[in-house]
Amino acid sequence: MLSSPRIALDAFGGDNCPATELEAAVAAARTGLRVLLVGDAAELEPRLATLAGQDNLPIEVHHAPDRISMSDSPSKAVRGKPTASMPVCFDLVKSGRADAVVSAGNSGAMLACGLFKYGRVEGVDRPAITVPFPTLKQKYTWLLDMGANVDCRALNLVQFAVMGSVYARVNGSKSRPIVALLSNGTEPGKGTELTRAAHRILSAHPSVDFEYAGYIEGNNVFDGAADVIVTDGYSGNVALKIVEGTTTAFTTFLRRAIKERHLTQVGALMMKPAFAMVKELLDSDSYGGAPLLGIDGVAIICHGGSSSMALANGIRVAASFVDQGLTPGLTEAIARNQRLFAAAKELG
Amino acid sequence: MLSSPRIALDAFGGDNCPATELEAAVAAARTGLRVLLVGDAAELEPRLATLAGQDNLPIEVHHAPDRISMSDSPSKAVRGKPTASMPVCFDLVKSGRADAVVSAGNSGAMLACGLFKYGRVEGVDRPAITVPFPTLKQKYTWLLDMGANVDCRALNLVQFAVMGSVYARVNGSKSRPIVALLSNGTEPGKGTELTRAAHRILSAHPSVDFEYAGYIEGNNVFDGAADVIVTDGYSGNVALKIVEGTTTAFTTFLRRAIKERHLTQVGALMMKPAFAMVKELLDSDSYGGAPLLGIDGVAIICHGGSSSMALANGIRVAASFVDQGLTPGLTEAIARNQRLFAAAKELG
Repeated sequence: MLSSPRIALDAFGGDNCPATELEAAVAAARTGLRVLLVGDAAELEPRLATLAGQDNLPIEVHHAPDRISMSDSPSKAVRGKPTASMPVCFDLVKSGRADAVVSAGNSGAMLACGLFKYGRVEGVDRPAITVPFPTLKQKYTWLLDMGANVDCRALNLVQFAVMGSVYARVNGSKSRPIVALLSNGTEPGKGTELTRAAHRILSAHPSVDFEYAGYIEGNNVFDGAADVIVTDGYSGNVALKIVEGTTTAFTTFLRRAIKERHLTQVGALMMKPAFAMVKELLDSDSYGGAPLLGIDGVAIICHGGSSSMALANGIRVAASFVDQGLTPGLTEAIARNQRLFAAAKELG
Repeated sequence: MLSSPRIALDAFGGDNCPATELEAAVAAARTGLRVLLVGDAAELEPRLATLAGQDNLPIEVHHAPDRISMSDSPSKAVRGKPTASMPVCFDLVKSGRADAVVSAGNSGAMLACGLFKYGRVEGVDRPAITVPFPTLKQKYTWLLDMGANVDCRALNLVQFAVMGSVYARVNGSKSRPIVALLSNGTEPGKGTELTRAAHRILSAHPSVDFEYAGYIEGNNVFDGAADVIVTDGYSGNVALKIVEGTTTAFTTFLRRAIKERHLTQVGALMMKPAFAMVKELLDSDSYGGAPLLGIDGVAIICHGGSSSMALANGIRVAASFVDQGLTPGLTEAIARNQRLFAAAKELG
């Protein structure tokens, strides 16, 4: 049996660091995962000793004296603060001491580290962030890009289709996942100049990696008709946050309706566990983090407010991507779909 | 007292026409609204006689032999089918026999009719469609554009800000509504090239018509922090439909959670009226239709599946916009904000 991948966890990333990260490392290590906890050793070591107790857990602390804040510019992470915990995580992978990075820190800085430390998978123009949407068919649909690239060209959308299909496959979807483009209507004349260009290319050049299903509208995102939904990072981010806003509004309006009409407080109380399940389902954070696709290595971005359970999930997910060869899979798929990209590049 | 506005209702627009339109006309007329029911007179007149009975309702039938289908191209409405009910509605306004148009038909055709029959308000580059989102502060937030213009330039977003503020004011918002730009983050560096250009212009040129509040994220759309939220028609349409998709998914997941876990069927039953209230609140159709802003006249687009109640609301809303001078208000505001537009035009 191969030894388990070593995950570099940025101990000073999240909103409640390093407490959450310490708990996550211990929880993950108790399931056999190997964690390199990266950050100020003087702070981390005594707290880790307390948490781990007598147990001999597969956790090492790697000292990194500095930290990237949420307000730091992305360039800080790659040039201004070389000894911060986040860039040091990436350095550990580069030097062969770790296999993947997980952080709940500044996502712009994560993207910059991914680009400058790992570099891009050969042939990739722009990496993308993907998150899972739960579907009514009881599996996930992967949306990308969720905010790494707000201004896209057709080449980017076409590459997102390829990368998303590899990711869906690694996550247990069918061998040739169904890919759709997010649009304002399903007729070919709908969409923007950008989506119409991507639609033409994807329609004209079938790929062995995915089945292209055309346009999909926002109201069908949860239907499970597509395994992967592609859009630019601006619309993707708006879509992701609108789901969050609608979920919150739904529960708040419901609470208000109950109160104002003196309705069914008892019913509401009885429904509480069902509500909690749905909120968790619609909360993409519960999945454990979003991978950066298209960089030459595994990096998982977790929400700043992640719980230790979500972060431990992020560690588990990172390890499974190393085991399943996500990065080699992406590299091969990008090489395999050059005709698609050439067609997109012709459009400029 | 001025006489009530005459509303030209396209009797062959919606999915269940003309039955829904006939019922809507009768319901509106019973509240004193004047309706011109436009379509095939041979079909409409006997059915209207049956519905209206002995009552002398302020409904006239205006004969139009043809009809625009949902699959007709927008140009059909303005050139190919001059005697169809939809373009005839606009002709009736132009010839002074009606004051506003309401239709549940093809929205692309409505936009084309608005542009070619009414023409644009002087100085407007592109009209926009706006819909209300309910907010936690118990008033509406108006989002635009919801799909009339998928590819926008900064001038369009800036004009949407002005038009949206006039519309929010007419709808009872404060005299200087708060306008925000939809974005993927609130820091000025966030957004697309397009939103950053619009942000710079709106920040540099305060308007008497609205207070510019900067960027707003998708998760805050329901907060009520802004009276008007501006975005391009692609993202706006995606946002609108994602709300619909999330609401449907929420209720479906909830039903499933209840069933799988054998939870609280009784609780769910007790909650039914509260659920119905929230679904109606989150369903923008219940408002009665979306106006086309920026054309030189009142035109309300209703959803194809509108109930007769929703269509009757559309008629009421159209009449109130005529009474409140929505179009003159827009014309004045566009003239008043030329500095803003000049700054946007400089960007190209």
